[in-house]
Amino acid sequence: MITIRDVARLAGVSVATVSRVLNDSAVASKQARDSVLKAVNELGYRPNANAQALATQSSDTIGVVVMDVSDPFFGALVKAVDDVAQRHKKHLLISNSYHQADKERHAIEVLLRQRCSALVVHAKMLTDEELIPFLEREPGMVLINRIIRGYEHRCVGLDNVSGALMSTRMLLANGHRRIGYIGSNHSIEDQRQRWRGYLQAMREVGIIVPQSFQATASPDLHGGEKAMVELLGRNQQLTAVVVYNDSMAVGALATLKENSIQVPSTFSLVGFDDIPISRFTSPNLTTVRYPIATMAEAATELALAGTAGKLDAGQTHLFMPTLVRRHSVAPCQNNAAVISTLPDEM
Amino acid sequence: MITIRDVARLAGVSVATVSRVLNDSAVASKQARDSVLKAVNELGYRPNANAQALATQSSDTIGVVVMDVSDPFFGALVKAVDDVAQRHKKHLLISNSYHQADKERHAIEVLLRQRCSALVVHAKMLTDEELIPFLEREPGMVLINRIIRGYEHRCVGLDNVSGALMSTRMLLANGHRRIGYIGSNHSIEDQRQRWRGYLQAMREVGIIVPQSFQATASPDLHGGEKAMVELLGRNQQLTAVVVYNDSMAVGALATLKENSIQVPSTFSLVGFDDIPISRFTSPNLTTVRYPIATMAEAATELALAGTAGKLDAGQTHLFMPTLVRRHSVAPCQNNAAVISTLPDEM
Repeated sequence: MITIRDVARLAGVSVATVSRVLNDSAVASKQARDSVLKAVNELGYRPNANAQALATQSSDTIGVVVMDVSDPFFGALVKAVDDVAQRHKKHLLISNSYHQADKERHAIEVLLRQRCSALVVHAKMLTDEELIPFLEREPGMVLINRIIRGYEHRCVGLDNVSGALMSTRMLLANGHRRIGYIGSNHSIEDQRQRWRGYLQAMREVGIIVPQSFQATASPDLHGGEKAMVELLGRNQQLTAVVVYNDSMAVGALATLKENSIQVPSTFSLVGFDDIPISRFTSPNLTTVRYPIATMAEAATELALAGTAGKLDAGQTHLFMPTLVRRHSVAPCQNNAAVISTLPDEM
Repeated sequence: MITIRDVARLAGVSVATVSRVLNDSAVASKQARDSVLKAVNELGYRPNANAQALATQSSDTIGVVVMDVSDPFFGALVKAVDDVAQRHKKHLLISNSYHQADKERHAIEVLLRQRCSALVVHAKMLTDEELIPFLEREPGMVLINRIIRGYEHRCVGLDNVSGALMSTRMLLANGHRRIGYIGSNHSIEDQRQRWRGYLQAMREVGIIVPQSFQATASPDLHGGEKAMVELLGRNQQLTAVVVYNDSMAVGALATLKENSIQVPSTFSLVGFDDIPISRFTSPNLTTVRYPIATMAEAATELALAGTAGKLDAGQTHLFMPTLVRRHSVAPCQNNAAVISTLPDEM
């Protein structure tokens, strides 16, 4: 096996110099760098990342924890982290956690055991009390889509309530009153916040939302299809629906079409996230833009700054969603129906 | 810092026993296992993955290289690998390679440096000559969506030519003759094989395809939109199109709608892959099913068998695509147009 000593001997430099060159240290001279890289090539020397990581107590790997990379929202998140990683010549170690507390904990532990130098973590099920010790121990760990009090400078979040508020208000401004809500059955903060924004907008015009206006399912295409079927089956004369995310909205749209309900002329619908497919449905989805790529890039830069001890403790990172007006919302044609003011049971 | 020695002392066993328990060795007794795990919990001991990997020359990590996790096809691939990894209590290290030879090589090198015990690699740009030394050195490395002669037992592939043949033949059987082809601008085997299948089916009915029937673009929603705009602009009186993949087909469908061209009544289109969105477009996409989840699971099991030295050298793993008949294809209404028999310039 070729060792770092063999490289040093052939290059005519010290082992420390070889190490500096291989770790991209600025201290090594151009000449030393050239001769070391030449020797590395000639010998076919491959540094062992584990030995390197042990020596430096860090690695050239950025870790990222997401719910599921095959979900388009998280795919976009991971891609944005990877863009920053590549710019910094780091590699990406990703772990799915499927919105389960034990898998979230496990994913973080695994990445820490790999001595990741920076961590971008999307964890929704672990409590603040469980996450804080990790944050305390790991200066390069940053949370995305979650804000923990006292650690705001290491958290990148979105104002979900405002997002749902603005989309529901837009439907109300279009004359809709019997507006349903299709939610996620993952018991996470995002769902609760978007639901709260919707309820608040409805209350602003004096509507107490009945339980029957809401259906929840898995936050994907199939879930949206299922929830829309359920809402239609309840025969509540809804004229519009606020949907938890775009994947569900695309599923709901398919259900409406199958039932020959025209969107937007007789039924309006608004999503959340603005994933790429939203521009390619028919009609294109009106939605709330979640700037996930921008946020993921910011989180990655923060994590790298954290590992370098260069975080600004005074800065916070709360992003605002924006309304993207496409073609799935139209003025309400059905001027019927004073809403029954059932008590808010939810 | 808590070390393995502290654990051994508290558990009243040897360091070697602690190591065996933590590495899930079958040799450790139930009793030893229980006392070690109790001591690990009490002390809050966290094994260092790098030290472990150095000691055993393997890690509990499965590596996977794909083009881009944010592409739905590769998202599905990664998810299937993760399913198997979780079943085996392994973790997933993923790396994007963006169909670039240097990034493919780099991704494989990084995963090997992390001492991954098993590797599932989707590499299309590296030559066989570059991949074979990796395969020779790493018994746990398996290729997906590529077959290298002499290493068939470690390659999981799909018969792309047959897939394009069957979709094109179906359009021909529906009376279409002026059938276009929307291809990927990534110069990879899949593109060449699907193109070949299309050409072969067309030749079977005596059609020499003119250059003007083909447009290529990036293999995603935007690329499909762009290529369809280009084909329509050439005014070739096409009545159908075979599309490289479903993402592009969804993009092409959006373009056709914007141009008020009814699918399938006046224009038919067929995709490839059968990603989830294909069931949710309007109309649903007729497509060729690429059993990527099944194939990725098979590849991961092979990689794990490879690390254990249990590969069957006599087995091959070539999967067949199947035609999924949904609603984007209808009989040709336009009985016009003998095809001009321009020479095949492509």
